Amino acid sequence: MTHLLDQLPEVLLMGPGPSCVPPAVYRALSRPTIGHMDPRFISVMDEIKGLLRQVMGTTNELTIPVSGTGSAGMETCFVNLVERGDPVLVLVNGVFGQRMTDVATRLGAEVDTLEFAWGKPVLVEAVQEKLGEKPYNLVAVVHAETSTGVCNPVAEIGQLVRQTDALFLVDTVTSLGGMPVTMDQWGCDVMYSGTQKCLSCPPGLAPVSFSARAVQKLRSRRSKVPNWYLDLTMIIQYWDGAKRVYHHTAPVNMLYALDQALRVILEEGLDQVYARHRQAHERLVEGLAPLGLEMLVAPESRLPMLNAVCVPEGVDEATVRRRLLEEHNIEMGAGLGPLAGRIWRIGLMGHTARPENVDRLLEAFQNVLK
Amino acid sequence: MTHLLDQLPEVLLMGPGPSCVPPAVYRALSRPTIGHMDPRFISVMDEIKGLLRQVMGTTNELTIPVSGTGSAGMETCFVNLVERGDPVLVLVNGVFGQRMTDVATRLGAEVDTLEFAWGKPVLVEAVQEKLGEKPYNLVAVVHAETSTGVCNPVAEIGQLVRQTDALFLVDTVTSLGGMPVTMDQWGCDVMYSGTQKCLSCPPGLAPVSFSARAVQKLRSRRSKVPNWYLDLTMIIQYWDGAKRVYHHTAPVNMLYALDQALRVILEEGLDQVYARHRQAHERLVEGLAPLGLEMLVAPESRLPMLNAVCVPEGVDEATVRRRLLEEHNIEMGAGLGPLAGRIWRIGLMGHTARPENVDRLLEAFQNVLK
Repeated sequence: MTHLLDQLPEVLLMGPGPSCVPPAVYRALSRPTIGHMDPRFISVMDEIKGLLRQVMGTTNELTIPVSGTGSAGMETCFVNLVERGDPVLVLVNGVFGQRMTDVATRLGAEVDTLEFAWGKPVLVEAVQEKLGEKPYNLVAVVHAETSTGVCNPVAEIGQLVRQTDALFLVDTVTSLGGMPVTMDQWGCDVMYSGTQKCLSCPPGLAPVSFSARAVQKLRSRRSKVPNWYLDLTMIIQYWDGAKRVYHHTAPVNMLYALDQALRVILEEGLDQVYARHRQAHERLVEGLAPLGLEMLVAPESRLPMLNAVCVPEGVDEATVRRRLLEEHNIEMGAGLGPLAGRIWRIGLMGHTARPENVDRLLEAFQNVLK
Repeated sequence: MTHLLDQLPEVLLMGPGPSCVPPAVYRALSRPTIGHMDPRFISVMDEIKGLLRQVMGTTNELTIPVSGTGSAGMETCFVNLVERGDPVLVLVNGVFGQRMTDVATRLGAEVDTLEFAWGKPVLVEAVQEKLGEKPYNLVAVVHAETSTGVCNPVAEIGQLVRQTDALFLVDTVTSLGGMPVTMDQWGCDVMYSGTQKCLSCPPGLAPVSFSARAVQKLRSRRSKVPNWYLDLTMIIQYWDGAKRVYHHTAPVNMLYALDQALRVILEEGLDQVYARHRQAHERLVEGLAPLGLEMLVAPESRLPMLNAVCVPEGVDEATVRRRLLEEHNIEMGAGLGPLAGRIWRIGLMGHTARPENVDRLLEAFQNVLK
C-alpha cells in the first residue's frame, strides 16, 4: 500500500511561508540525532548563535532559536518582558500586529493599539504623537507585515522609541534573511523571527534576540515568567555559559537544519541575498502588469518577499489558487482578515526567490487566468 | 573547511532521550516541505491523529501533536485546563513531578503536592487519603519518571481520581510507545508525551490528548487561555473540522517524521514493541550484575526503557559517561537533582531497545570500568 507521505508532490512554495528549502538543508535536517547535552551538539548551538547575530545585525549575547515556530517567538518576547498591568503600545496594520495585541492582552498587559490601514505603512508622526501622551514599557511593531506585504519604517520608529524609556520590539518573521535587518542600528531591544520564510529552513524554530536592556528588564521582573517552557531565565542557562543546564530537550535535527540554512545564506553573502530578493520582486511586478494584475501596496512600501496582488473583479481567488496547486504544483497564499478574497499573497522567500521560479509562476498564472 | 555538522559522529543514544531514530524516519523528515494549508498535508495531519490514538489507547477526538518538545506538552495541558486559584494536586517523586508543580504554580493555580521518595513509586493509599481532604480540579502524575526510572501506578490512581470531580492528568513522555499506555482504560482525561523517547522520532513535538470532559472544562473557562501559542481552542480549528483555520505554521517536516515513526511502531505491533523493550531491559539488568552494578529501583517498579543504575562507591560517574561517549560513541544519562552523581540513567527507548545495543553497552561499560 502506498503511504500518504510517498504521494506528496514537490511543490513550488510561493505562499507566505514555508518557502522552498535548499538540498543542503534537507541533508542537515536528516543527519543522525545526537544528545542535546553532547559537547559536540553544544558546539553546533554556539555556532548557531554566532550566525544568527550576523543575520540579525546584532551583537546581543542573548541571541538564540526558541523551540517552536515563529508565533512561539512572539510569545517568548512578550511573556518574558511583560508583566500584569504593564503599559504596552502595539502598532497595528495587519494580522500580526493584531496577534501581538492578543498575546500581550492575555498576559495581563495594559495594551494600547495605534491602528493603520491594512496595505499602508505605520505613520511615524502618529507614533510620535502617541508616545508623547503617556509612558510605555514596551512598543511593538511588525517590520514586514506578512498579511499585507507592507514594510513598516522600523528605523524611524526606533529613533522615537529610543527617546523614551520603552523597550522596542520588532517582529522580523518575514523580513529576516530577505532584506536588511539591523537590530542594533534600529535601536531594537527585542526581536523574533521564524525559520520557514527567508531563512529557507523548514518551520519549527523561532530565532529571538534580547538587548542588554531587555535582559536587565527580564532579570528585574517582579514575578516568575508565567510560562515555564519559554522562560528565558532558565533557557539561557542551557544556551550559554561554561556549564550548560538541561531545560528541555532541544529539537536537535531542526537545529542542524537552521545551522546549515544560516551558513547557506552567509556563504552567498547578505547583500547578494537581499539583491536576489529585490530582483525577483521586480521581475514579478513587471510580469504581473501585462496580466492585468495590480499590487495592493504602493511601490515605496512594498516588501520584496511578500507580494500582495489584488484579485481582479469577477475572479474567484480560491479557484485560481487551487488550480495553481493542483495543475502546476505551485502554492500561493490567500488574503487574511479584511483582505480575504481580495488579494493573493505571493511569497518570494529565500531559496524560492529566483528568476526561474518567478517565470514559472507567471506562466502558470497566465494559463489559469485565461 | 570542514563544517561542524560533518564532524558529528553516529552515537548510540542510550540516555534519557533522544533515542536512536530508524532510517525510514530520517527519510520522512527530509521529504520536501509542502504548505501547512495544503490539502495533502491536512491528510497527513488526519493520519497522525488516528495513529496517535492507537498508540495512546484512546478514542479522544482531540488527540494531536503540539508544536514544541515534551515540556511544551506539559505546558499545554496545564495552561489550557488550569485557571488562577484552581486547586490542583501534583504527585511528586522526581524531577518531572516537580516540573509540573512549577508549571501549575506559575499559572496561578493553588498547588498541593504529595511527595514520595525518589526511586520509589507513588503510594496509592496516600493519594486516597489526600483526595479525601479537599476537592481538586485536577490531579497530575508522571507515569514513567524519567529522572528515577520508576513506574507509577497510574491505573490505580485513576480509579481513585474517577471517584472525585477532578480531571486526571498523566505525563507519558517516557512511557509512550515503550510500554502499555491505555489512556481511556486508566480514566485519564489529559495526557502529554514527547517524540524523542520510545516513539524514536527526533525531539520537537509533543503529542497531547484531551478527553471530552477535559474539552468541556476548556470550553467553559472563565478567562482566555493566557498563552496564545498553545491555546487549544484555536489550535483545534486548524487540526479539526471541515474548514481548517490557520493558527501558526505547523512544523511540517517534524510532522512527516512523527507520522512515519508511528507507522513503524504500529507495523511492528504494539505488543511486539513492548516485549522488545522488556527483553532489552532484562538483558541489561542481567548483564549489569556481573559488573557489580545495581539498580536503584525495586524490580516491581522498574521501567523497561529507563534504567537507573547506582554508581559504585569511589567511581567518578562523569568520567565514565565521558569515556563511553568519547571512546565508544555511546551516550548515557546522568542523575538529576538529589540523584546527581549517584546514578546513571540508561535509556532503552524505541529503536535503541535491541539486544545488540545492550550488548554493545555492556562491553563498553566493562572496558571503561576496569
